[in-house]
Amino acid sequence: MKLQALLFDVIGTVVDYRTTILREGAALGAAHGLVVDWPVFVARWRQHERLAQEAVTRGDWPWTDRDAIHRRGLDELLPAGLSSASKDAFNHVWNRVEPWPDAVAGLSRLRERFVVAALSNSTLASLVRLSRQGGLHWDAILSADFFQAFKPDRRVYAEAVRLLQLPPADVMLVAAHTSDLRGARAAGLKTAFVVRPLEFGPDGPVETPDADFDVVARDFLDLADQLV
Amino acid sequence: MKLQALLFDVIGTVVDYRTTILREGAALGAAHGLVVDWPVFVARWRQHERLAQEAVTRGDWPWTDRDAIHRRGLDELLPAGLSSASKDAFNHVWNRVEPWPDAVAGLSRLRERFVVAALSNSTLASLVRLSRQGGLHWDAILSADFFQAFKPDRRVYAEAVRLLQLPPADVMLVAAHTSDLRGARAAGLKTAFVVRPLEFGPDGPVETPDADFDVVARDFLDLADQLV
Repeated sequence: MKLQALLFDVIGTVVDYRTTILREGAALGAAHGLVVDWPVFVARWRQHERLAQEAVTRGDWPWTDRDAIHRRGLDELLPAGLSSASKDAFNHVWNRVEPWPDAVAGLSRLRERFVVAALSNSTLASLVRLSRQGGLHWDAILSADFFQAFKPDRRVYAEAVRLLQLPPADVMLVAAHTSDLRGARAAGLKTAFVVRPLEFGPDGPVETPDADFDVVARDFLDLADQLV
Repeated sequence: MKLQALLFDVIGTVVDYRTTILREGAALGAAHGLVVDWPVFVARWRQHERLAQEAVTRGDWPWTDRDAIHRRGLDELLPAGLSSASKDAFNHVWNRVEPWPDAVAGLSRLRERFVVAALSNSTLASLVRLSRQGGLHWDAILSADFFQAFKPDRRVYAEAVRLLQLPPADVMLVAAHTSDLRGARAAGLKTAFVVRPLEFGPDGPVETPDADFDVVARDFLDLADQLV
């Protein structure tokens, strides 16, 4: 396989957002006397984000970046009694989500051989902050902000490979989410599914890869073993 | 001074393009029997680039990325007898230009304290390649490609700080070129002039800073001494 660049989905694939949100949510709840089932809240916040992104893709919403989508989610999902400023501060939890244990070492190995870039629906500002905090090193960060479109909109993958000046078949998307990988495949990219069994919690659903993904890996170290 | 992020002009400020182009030009000339005054050629290639970018900014040219501009420059400036494929290959010299001796160490020190990003008129593809080759590590690479506009068009600086979600006054442009710094200042950014006395060769002109730039530095290590 001729391969020059790897594009990584970030939220859920590179970072474990759930653990950080549960921890900061519990602290927020204790500080303000909120009664919230935080595991349920996390799942709903992600669902709200997905539905909002789909509304943007359909053209029902004007372009709205993911930080703004997350902030609206807090208005809809948190109980009354929290100030707007407190919600703004809590929304920054996305800047503090932490890499899965294998992510930093795996990216480092893969980057010796390939161009390694983020391709994420998150804002550039959030991606820069979480990458600095988590010690994630990229050759480039490509954000939905640049395209004013969200994955799995095919335009995002097409624009990413155009910016890198590479043939789509020389670029692989790495993600823990089948919908993202199907979008990449439709745009002609290679696909690597990395299973993240704890993304939705120890009792949550686990995604299974399509039969025609090019690579299936247990984590980024396994991915490096298969590709490098 | 409250400062959160440093944006770096790249070509001429971070990398010494002249030395690499002179070396590869001499090799190209020897291989193809071309009679070219390479120091004069380099200066004309840069002038062609600047005039083309100004034509884009005025709206006289449609958006044309810098790799395509450089390629047109070769058609205009090299003598006849070189194939299109040879010119394509030589145009990639911009992916191989090397950092000034202080650049890697200086960026590394500054990045401990600030968000450090490239803000360049070059293509993302070229910036990724020259950064990998030269060992330059960025928190983000911002290319004219994203904005379909060239510095010193004020929109470029305004869009860059908007993407970083920072107030313009908390962001500093670092550049060896007064025109670039004046554009940044007009958009409300802080300004750091770094002198690169050899950019245009040992006998070439040397730019002098405006009196109202915020910082003037001898190189990136001196800049780190002043800011960190």
